[in-house]
Amino acid sequence: MAPQYAPSLRSRLAPLLLFLQMGFIAIYVFYVEIDTHTDLTRDFYATFQDVQVIVFLGFGFLGSFLVRYGFSSIGFNLLVAAVATQWAIVLNGMESWYYRGKVSINLRSLVVAEMCTASALISIGAVLGKTNPVQLTLAALLEVTGFILNEWLLRSLLRVQLLNSIMQLHIFGPFFGLALTWILDWKGCEKQFEKEKSAYKSGLFSMLGSVFIWMFWPSFNSILVDDRTPVRALEAVLSTYLALAASAVTAAAVTVLSNPKGTLNLIQMHSCIHAGGVAIGVCLTAVRHPWEAMTVGYSAAVLSTAGFRYLKGPMLLAHWFHDARDVLSTHAIPGLLGWVAHLLLQIQACDDPTTAVRFAVFHMCTLLLTLALSLSMGLVTGIILKWNFWRPPQDKKCFDDQAFWEFPHLAVGK
Amino acid sequence: MAPQYAPSLRSRLAPLLLFLQMGFIAIYVFYVEIDTHTDLTRDFYATFQDVQVIVFLGFGFLGSFLVRYGFSSIGFNLLVAAVATQWAIVLNGMESWYYRGKVSINLRSLVVAEMCTASALISIGAVLGKTNPVQLTLAALLEVTGFILNEWLLRSLLRVQLLNSIMQLHIFGPFFGLALTWILDWKGCEKQFEKEKSAYKSGLFSMLGSVFIWMFWPSFNSILVDDRTPVRALEAVLSTYLALAASAVTAAAVTVLSNPKGTLNLIQMHSCIHAGGVAIGVCLTAVRHPWEAMTVGYSAAVLSTAGFRYLKGPMLLAHWFHDARDVLSTHAIPGLLGWVAHLLLQIQACDDPTTAVRFAVFHMCTLLLTLALSLSMGLVTGIILKWNFWRPPQDKKCFDDQAFWEFPHLAVGK
Amino acid sequence: MAPQYAPSLRSRLAPLLLFLQMGFIAIYVFYVEIDTHTDLTRDFYATFQDVQVIVFLGFGFLGSFLVRYGFSSIGFNLLVAAVATQWAIVLNGMESWYYRGKVSINLRSLVVAEMCTASALISIGAVLGKTNPVQLTLAALLEVTGFILNEWLLRSLLRVQLLNSIMQLHIFGPFFGLALTWILDWKGCEKQFEKEKSAYKSGLFSMLGSVFIWMFWPSFNSILVDDRTPVRALEAVLSTYLALAASAVTAAAVTVLSNPKGTLNLIQMHSCIHAGGVAIGVCLTAVRHPWEAMTVGYSAAVLSTAGFRYLKGPMLLAHWFHDARDVLSTHAIPGLLGWVAHLLLQIQACDDPTTAVRFAVFHMCTLLLTLALSLSMGLVTGIILKWNFWRPPQDKKCFDDQAFWEFPHLAVGK
Repeated sequence: MAPQYAPSLRSRLAPLLLFLQMGFIAIYVFYVEIDTHTDLTRDFYATFQDVQVIVFLGFGFLGSFLVRYGFSSIGFNLLVAAVATQWAIVLNGMESWYYRGKVSINLRSLVVAEMCTASALISIGAVLGKTNPVQLTLAALLEVTGFILNEWLLRSLLRVQLLNSIMQLHIFGPFFGLALTWILDWKGCEKQFEKEKSAYKSGLFSMLGSVFIWMFWPSFNSILVDDRTPVRALEAVLSTYLALAASAVTAAAVTVLSNPKGTLNLIQMHSCIHAGGVAIGVCLTAVRHPWEAMTVGYSAAVLSTAGFRYLKGPMLLAHWFHDARDVLSTHAIPGLLGWVAHLLLQIQACDDPTTAVRFAVFHMCTLLLTLALSLSMGLVTGIILKWNFWRPPQDKKCFDDQAFWEFPHLAVGK
Repeated sequence: MAPQYAPSLRSRLAPLLLFLQMGFIAIYVFYVEIDTHTDLTRDFYATFQDVQVIVFLGFGFLGSFLVRYGFSSIGFNLLVAAVATQWAIVLNGMESWYYRGKVSINLRSLVVAEMCTASALISIGAVLGKTNPVQLTLAALLEVTGFILNEWLLRSLLRVQLLNSIMQLHIFGPFFGLALTWILDWKGCEKQFEKEKSAYKSGLFSMLGSVFIWMFWPSFNSILVDDRTPVRALEAVLSTYLALAASAVTAAAVTVLSNPKGTLNLIQMHSCIHAGGVAIGVCLTAVRHPWEAMTVGYSAAVLSTAGFRYLKGPMLLAHWFHDARDVLSTHAIPGLLGWVAHLLLQIQACDDPTTAVRFAVFHMCTLLLTLALSLSMGLVTGIILKWNFWRPPQDKKCFDDQAFWEFPHLAVGK
Repeated sequence: MAPQYAPSLRSRLAPLLLFLQMGFIAIYVFYVEIDTHTDLTRDFYATFQDVQVIVFLGFGFLGSFLVRYGFSSIGFNLLVAAVATQWAIVLNGMESWYYRGKVSINLRSLVVAEMCTASALISIGAVLGKTNPVQLTLAALLEVTGFILNEWLLRSLLRVQLLNSIMQLHIFGPFFGLALTWILDWKGCEKQFEKEKSAYKSGLFSMLGSVFIWMFWPSFNSILVDDRTPVRALEAVLSTYLALAASAVTAAAVTVLSNPKGTLNLIQMHSCIHAGGVAIGVCLTAVRHPWEAMTVGYSAAVLSTAGFRYLKGPMLLAHWFHDARDVLSTHAIPGLLGWVAHLLLQIQACDDPTTAVRFAVFHMCTLLLTLALSLSMGLVTGIILKWNFWRPPQDKKCFDDQAFWEFPHLAVGK
């Protein structure tokens, strides 16, 4: 007979976290120092805080639509992000450490690290609820490693700009997550999860996360645009804003249209109003006119909404994969669309066909490399995490806070 | 017999939104470009994000005190704001388009557009719950049109400064909304709405919106103060802060005083703690001393609290109008008080009587023009929206998310 | 027989608040003016807004884990903060008023005033739910007075820097609160409070406050770092960030470890993930390396988590004191640890033993003065507030919104 209670994580989670945290401190003792020659000022800092809100609050509350998984969604998001950011700082500094023996960090390092963390948080969205915090932490560490490797390859092999290589997070993250959930559910996910439900109040909590991400997305897209060219940063803000506005309006329209009863769907809206922000993020450096941004936002919303409605069910029925936070329609589809838009816009801006073909080949290589690395890393991660040693939750305990959180009748101070 | 279900909006909402969004894209293709000569920097951007929080999150969550209308309050607010902002950008650029054939947008254009949107969001607060999203969108478009027309008239006829003309939103918005709700309820609102209720948890959600608006109001009032005079912007921040603090303390005192049982009332607090921010916004350019700001905040809170307690009920009983989010006491009364305070402060600062009388006449004209335009536009909008073609919700389905949102037992991924 | 209803606050709260607010206006008329010579810009303003979010939203929502005390926790927090800030501005300007006859306020004055308010909000956290808003307001006024006196003594007697003296708020605040709750519960708190409970949804609301405080803590710690040395401000941001990250990870690990079932505890997490931010705030000026910050965050989380688990119960059983929002483990223990860390780091940086000993003596005096003043002011405040004139709530009505808020079946507009 199956055990009544979820397996205790005491002997897994605590040692892992303590080991990681002490390891980080040890690494930081020898290799990390604060960069005192930077000229970043407080104005950059405000945009950084917007990114923090997206990463720590937005992603966490976005998952709180799950009626019995709110504590875990928000709490594990913060925990995983705190671990992944410290790890990303170390990895991002490897090159500097190799040449100088030291890693200098400043506010910009933190931002880049949080971008890497964001890609990990996107990817674990696909397995949320079906994994325990030990697995989530390990998945995030491996994802960040893969993502930074991918970014390094893109920059050193293909000479991709920093901003463009970072924005691959909208492609790397979701495909890593989809490969991961595919392996984890392999012959395991025959039936539905009984506790994967939403409710009215939990829907309101997730709206909070959704609105914050929507509002602060221009900060997320513009923060790494080169500070010496404030006009480009402004363009990024405006483009993202218009893409998001077009995306929200279109997502509502297509949702109502694709629904027989003509009603809106909250979870679908969460996924699809951000589609424009994702797509525009990927093709940001090629967008020059407001209407281009709006068209990208419009198309992203249409594809994302249609993907949510017509792909999610069949994928599940075919036992392909179970996608807890809809990373397929929220990130993967708009991310790919952004890649296509980047290609088209850049080709259209080219003067002669040779440059255009060269760019197309180079752009194709970028995508293939990212896809290959994300899928293979996702598969490897999935195989590692399937190991019973990590005490994965049983199906009955999936999407349930009670497996991980104490509820002593929720009394306080007694 | 009346139909059991709310009429489907599929054939109304989806075409309207798609038409609007495609129309916006078409207009933007030919007429809107990004202003690359601007010197706005990231520090302005941070204040812009505070305004975004007020507009997209604050107004939305403020209405979530309605126990069965949270999804709609937050979701429609975002939808309407996304439409209205795109429209306001186009209208605000009309003059530039007339002279140059192009509209250049920058961050400042976005801010001005969001201010116009805020006036629309205030006005639809009066009809929230009794209308469907098609009606809300149309009302917002017409309100923004009227507001920008009013602003243009004020500036070209009466030479009102930009900041002062924008801040008329606290007068234009609520009176438009009151005229609108008056027409919409005309001989229709004999009895109460059974679903217009609050509950404990929904009250907490609305507190979130309320506190965010309260905190970020100094940004809202100071963002359009001329950037070349940072001291004036600082004065605006401090004045607004002190007015809000005085307002919050006074609102609590008067609420307790006017209540026979000596208890506080959550909905009343929501309305009245912001009164100081509204009033000070309208008279901002005339305030020079901290105590003036605090006195304005104090008086606004007293009037607003009294208005909530002693006007709302009689207005409803007399079948005058039904005011869903109390725009009368939240915006209209403090807005008028701000107008009076502006008059008094400016007259007191005048050296000779002639200038004082001249200012008084001019100031009176400003108010009369704004009131005339807002009330007439509100009436016209009301008459248009009463048309059955828009499928207004029946009384039984008012204040109910189920009319517009899918609740398949709220199951996810099934 | 005991009365069925909570005593009405009509004749206590309303006069107190009106008297205070009118008194503030009267003081401001004669003594406070806006500083027009300041050169603060909008970039400072963005950080100020982060502090506002911590003070007005964060502290309020943090207490909303109490299932029947959400309205009061959030509402009274805003009310008390609005009163205390206005009072702190007056007191902080005393010196300038003594010499110049006028108090000039600017954005920096507001920030310092909000820091003083934060210390008051920390201290009333210990008596939350067992007191009425009249008592909370008075406690906050006395706490702010004591804190500013302490700060002035530290700066004039011991030549402590402004930043260091302000950061004593993490020591002054909690010990004031503990002395206060000790007196208030003296022979009164024999049994538990039946309504001091948490619930699932209220836990989610408190997570919101907790995550906001966690994210914006770097702003809180860095805002008063001298603006002429942006590098120091950047160091403060990075140190706080790393301390918080280490703290969150360690708190999760130790919570799981110290719990027999190996589960996390929400209330404990709320208290302990911030421990690093508190401790690093106190020793901020002495921290030079990232690993030092992380070690401080790590140790603070270990001590805070252990304190929560092993001190709270015994303290209560021994009838020492009842600590509603765990200020002992959240603020007092990490605050003292920060003091120790400051001592160690500074001694280690000293070149010769004489300077080291001198610093140690001086540092010891700082602590003793702060502790003596906070405890004695807390005791005096407790004795004043025990007076029945203030109509303290009976035990049965503790932790209950119904004592202070109107619930007319929560109907709106009826």
